[in-house]
Amino acid sequence: MDSKLVVAVDVFDCDFALDLAREIGKEVFALKVNWPLLMVRGSSIVSELSRYARVICDLKIADIPNTNRLIVDKVSGEGAWGVISHSFTGEDSLKSVVEAAGDTKVFSVVAMSHPGASQFIHPRTDELIDLSIKTGVYGLIAPGNNYEMLSGIRARTNELVLLTPGIGAQGGTPEEAMRHGADLLIVGRAIYNAEKPIEEVRRFNSAISQFRR
Amino acid sequence: MDSKLVVAVDVFDCDFALDLAREIGKEVFALKVNWPLLMVRGSSIVSELSRYARVICDLKIADIPNTNRLIVDKVSGEGAWGVISHSFTGEDSLKSVVEAAGDTKVFSVVAMSHPGASQFIHPRTDELIDLSIKTGVYGLIAPGNNYEMLSGIRARTNELVLLTPGIGAQGGTPEEAMRHGADLLIVGRAIYNAEKPIEEVRRFNSAISQFRR
Repeated sequence: MDSKLVVAVDVFDCDFALDLAREIGKEVFALKVNWPLLMVRGSSIVSELSRYARVICDLKIADIPNTNRLIVDKVSGEGAWGVISHSFTGEDSLKSVVEAAGDTKVFSVVAMSHPGASQFIHPRTDELIDLSIKTGVYGLIAPGNNYEMLSGIRARTNELVLLTPGIGAQGGTPEEAMRHGADLLIVGRAIYNAEKPIEEVRRFNSAISQFRR
Repeated sequence: MDSKLVVAVDVFDCDFALDLAREIGKEVFALKVNWPLLMVRGSSIVSELSRYARVICDLKIADIPNTNRLIVDKVSGEGAWGVISHSFTGEDSLKSVVEAAGDTKVFSVVAMSHPGASQFIHPRTDELIDLSIKTGVYGLIAPGNNYEMLSGIRARTNELVLLTPGIGAQGGTPEEAMRHGADLLIVGRAIYNAEKPIEEVRRFNSAISQFRR
């Protein structure tokens, strides 16, 4: 499996999510879920989806160390392949996530794709990257619709895996994101809203496969 | 009801949480729940607990506006009295929370009680307060174990309700926190781990009632 595609399953219907996972699971790198889906019937949806594909829990964890640990223990116990945490809550907070994660990969947020991120997060992005490296995360979240920022993050770390939202509806293209240093691309609506999701997955896989960093 | 006590129900057992709510609900200001409890069987625990007391969902919301809206819609629909959101994700992000909340009160995090908060959050606390005021939140989260910071936050806003963690196990005392500007005090373990939680609630209520700001 060499897909670089992470499909955001931003839906509230567990049956729909499981049907989608069954259809596309074998041809994507991973599925990404966030809190709204976990709120429907709890974190067990993570282990259900994990039967069909790797699951990355996009929880934007941003609490005190003890609460972070409890959250990560839970999704890790459900078999999550990865988990997304903020880093702006500081070293002890991010460290608690990495320690609790065990074999689950931690991706740390150092930049975001919405305008408000420019106020408090982006002025500190370089420091958030350095903290993330120091803390031993597996990868970073880097905006796929802001190529200058994406390149800047890539320039600061060659090792960490860059997982990139902002593709499609938010303006980024797979080709440009890969050229600017992305490793894994997140696509949501364009796939889960498609009449035939598997055909969209194949179209994205094919487009991406021509542009490796 | 004039209790100023918010009891953090940091447990994973829904039945235990409901028994506790039944026992103490009438004599506290509110119950506070966070993600670990919601992960057990989803957000429906919020409406179940709401039968016995106000419920504040401590979700430390920190995502893009659209995801924030989905999270808040869900807990608001379950009858949450309040919800806790980060503010460092910027104006559009916090605004999305306030708009989606409707009658549910929004408390915004402008400081935290763990050491890592000093790295990225506390240098911007004043700006986070000003942003929170501008965005129309109901209250702020202010550390009850850091009286200098608590006083500083109170000095910057007389109107917003200060909801204060860090009492008890983390070092703050109810009396000092009230003296330094707190409105509502969060206590967790000292109550839910007590042999007779209702007696602890009454002890705290009585201690707090002597110290109004």
